[in-house]
Amino acid sequence: MTISARRDRLRQRLEAEGLDALLVTRLVNVRYLSGFTGSNAALLIRVDDDTPVLATDGRYRTQAAQQVPDAEIVIERACGPHLARRAAEAGVGRLGFESHVVTVEGFDALTTAAGNTELVRAAGIVEQLREVKDAGEIALLRLACEAADAALTDLVQRGGLRPGRTEREVGRELESLMLDHGADGVSFETIVAAGANSAIPHHRPTDAVLAAGDFVKIDFGALVCGYHSDMTRTFVLAPAAQWQLDLYELVATAQRAGSEAVVAGAPLRDIDAASRRVIAEAGYGDNFTHGLGHGVGLEIHEAPGINSSAAGTLLAGSAVTVEPGVYLPDRGGVRIEDTLVVCEEPEDRRHQTSELLTQFPKELAILG
Amino acid sequence: MTISARRDRLRQRLEAEGLDALLVTRLVNVRYLSGFTGSNAALLIRVDDDTPVLATDGRYRTQAAQQVPDAEIVIERACGPHLARRAAEAGVGRLGFESHVVTVEGFDALTTAAGNTELVRAAGIVEQLREVKDAGEIALLRLACEAADAALTDLVQRGGLRPGRTEREVGRELESLMLDHGADGVSFETIVAAGANSAIPHHRPTDAVLAAGDFVKIDFGALVCGYHSDMTRTFVLAPAAQWQLDLYELVATAQRAGSEAVVAGAPLRDIDAASRRVIAEAGYGDNFTHGLGHGVGLEIHEAPGINSSAAGTLLAGSAVTVEPGVYLPDRGGVRIEDTLVVCEEPEDRRHQTSELLTQFPKELAILG
Repeated sequence: MTISARRDRLRQRLEAEGLDALLVTRLVNVRYLSGFTGSNAALLIRVDDDTPVLATDGRYRTQAAQQVPDAEIVIERACGPHLARRAAEAGVGRLGFESHVVTVEGFDALTTAAGNTELVRAAGIVEQLREVKDAGEIALLRLACEAADAALTDLVQRGGLRPGRTEREVGRELESLMLDHGADGVSFETIVAAGANSAIPHHRPTDAVLAAGDFVKIDFGALVCGYHSDMTRTFVLAPAAQWQLDLYELVATAQRAGSEAVVAGAPLRDIDAASRRVIAEAGYGDNFTHGLGHGVGLEIHEAPGINSSAAGTLLAGSAVTVEPGVYLPDRGGVRIEDTLVVCEEPEDRRHQTSELLTQFPKELAILG
Repeated sequence: MTISARRDRLRQRLEAEGLDALLVTRLVNVRYLSGFTGSNAALLIRVDDDTPVLATDGRYRTQAAQQVPDAEIVIERACGPHLARRAAEAGVGRLGFESHVVTVEGFDALTTAAGNTELVRAAGIVEQLREVKDAGEIALLRLACEAADAALTDLVQRGGLRPGRTEREVGRELESLMLDHGADGVSFETIVAAGANSAIPHHRPTDAVLAAGDFVKIDFGALVCGYHSDMTRTFVLAPAAQWQLDLYELVATAQRAGSEAVVAGAPLRDIDAASRRVIAEAGYGDNFTHGLGHGVGLEIHEAPGINSSAAGTLLAGSAVTVEPGVYLPDRGGVRIEDTLVVCEEPEDRRHQTSELLTQFPKELAILG
């Protein structure tokens, strides 16, 4: 599926909503619908016109022409208002705008520019389209996950996880290895949490030193052409205590249960419940303090959210994480996270229901 | 000056604007006024109450208590609406909100929550306060600039800039050296632009290989406790051609002229003009395609903008860049950029008018 096919899907959606055009001002949505990656842009998509209009400023003249050859390019610093005026001049009656992103001040400027054209709230329309990935997007997610897999494999094989190193050193090395394996950057600041720090769900790496007997929880991802990978693995530095073996086994079981519940058409909250039940039945329900997972793509967190209060069902073609965790304050915690792509709804349960993108092993590794 | 003194300044400003309170929802402004660094927060500052209220969600319970011991902490996911309701319950009549940040959808939620309290647009109030740095902020900017200086010094001394290396390799090494020298991270993606690429003002590093006779333009910065440094240096890999020596000398002269014009009280556009005139008189006016500089602090670009259309004057205590550049398409370009802190208005011109934070030498280095 090409990028123009994404715009075709959007046009169908706009027609269904009774809109004549959409003014896209959220940059990640501009990128999704055009391929343009500059830091100042807006895009006008009209239902009755196949050629989108991309506005950006003079810094990006060359880049815009290269990245979006099939659009009309307009060089103009105030991108949004300019395209609202364009829409009005083209006789657009109802112009959707991204009311979840446009600010109160920005809305004033659009209102002035739009004249008699009616500005209609259209929050989240593009984000909903983005929930279902096309083949090109899945290919990039796969590359991002492969870079992360390869980096963690290297880190472990070269003995990078050992007593005496700091969390920060481990994080820097892992990030550097991802770049070596083809990542353009990192998805987010790498979490390396050792010992009691592993009980903090989103710990930032410190100069804390890894020690024998520690859990080491690593949550990280690679960025490839704008697409994010997301994976968590937890290790033990030998010797492992019995409570650590038990806790790891519990979370691994919950992670399997969650992954098996990732089936197109499943209610999102049921997927969360499938994993959460395992942990709650073991008596640790209060120690699993976050949702089970989230969509991942051009953003590290995007639709759908998979948690106990989520509405809706899982769509085929979406890419989601499954990441249960149990955190025991002042002792340690375990989280295991994969990224999966949801397959078409299976005819029977013998068919594969999801594709695992993060393939680093999940058997507990006791290192050193 | 402590963080509570920043809030005192804000309260004075609110009173002058006829506001009873300000609802701060822009995270960087929350950080400035409270010290809190989490990713979901809002802050309520009342004119008649010294104790601010910080709202954040459950992930940050411990962190908020540690970072903002002098605030009332409220755990609540919908931070902004919750504090709008709090303001209404406290009898606030006119509640300022950050209309340059609050979205159209977000404003609906605030309106519902605020009840009879009047929501008043207060765009940019905190950003204006942030323009003048206090001693603590200047100390952190100094540390960030020192980390960048030290990293570039190391890079050059170890022969990191030499033919055969790629732009990407150089960028990664420089970023790694900044971390070695105490940076928490990088200010922005490092620009390394060799040869003809140096003519692109904001070039992203590629696998292009550095070659003898190239300009190598490096624009980079370190992040320390949230504060950004920003510096550009341009080198030549030997042998240097005469046009390169001439171009470098021109930009260096323009950079000195701009830096000398950095005086408290000067009209911003005059500072731009002082540097731009040098380049225009040499016949390269059309090749200096951006403004002269910008404020730097908790954001890499903040008030004031120093360019030909800027209104206002330079304030003592602001921190700004001075970064003229001349770009010759398909040949190469030179940019030289420093970060300066503006001293108190001098009684006569023999007094120091600014403090140079980026101290890496600006004499042309011809390497190899």
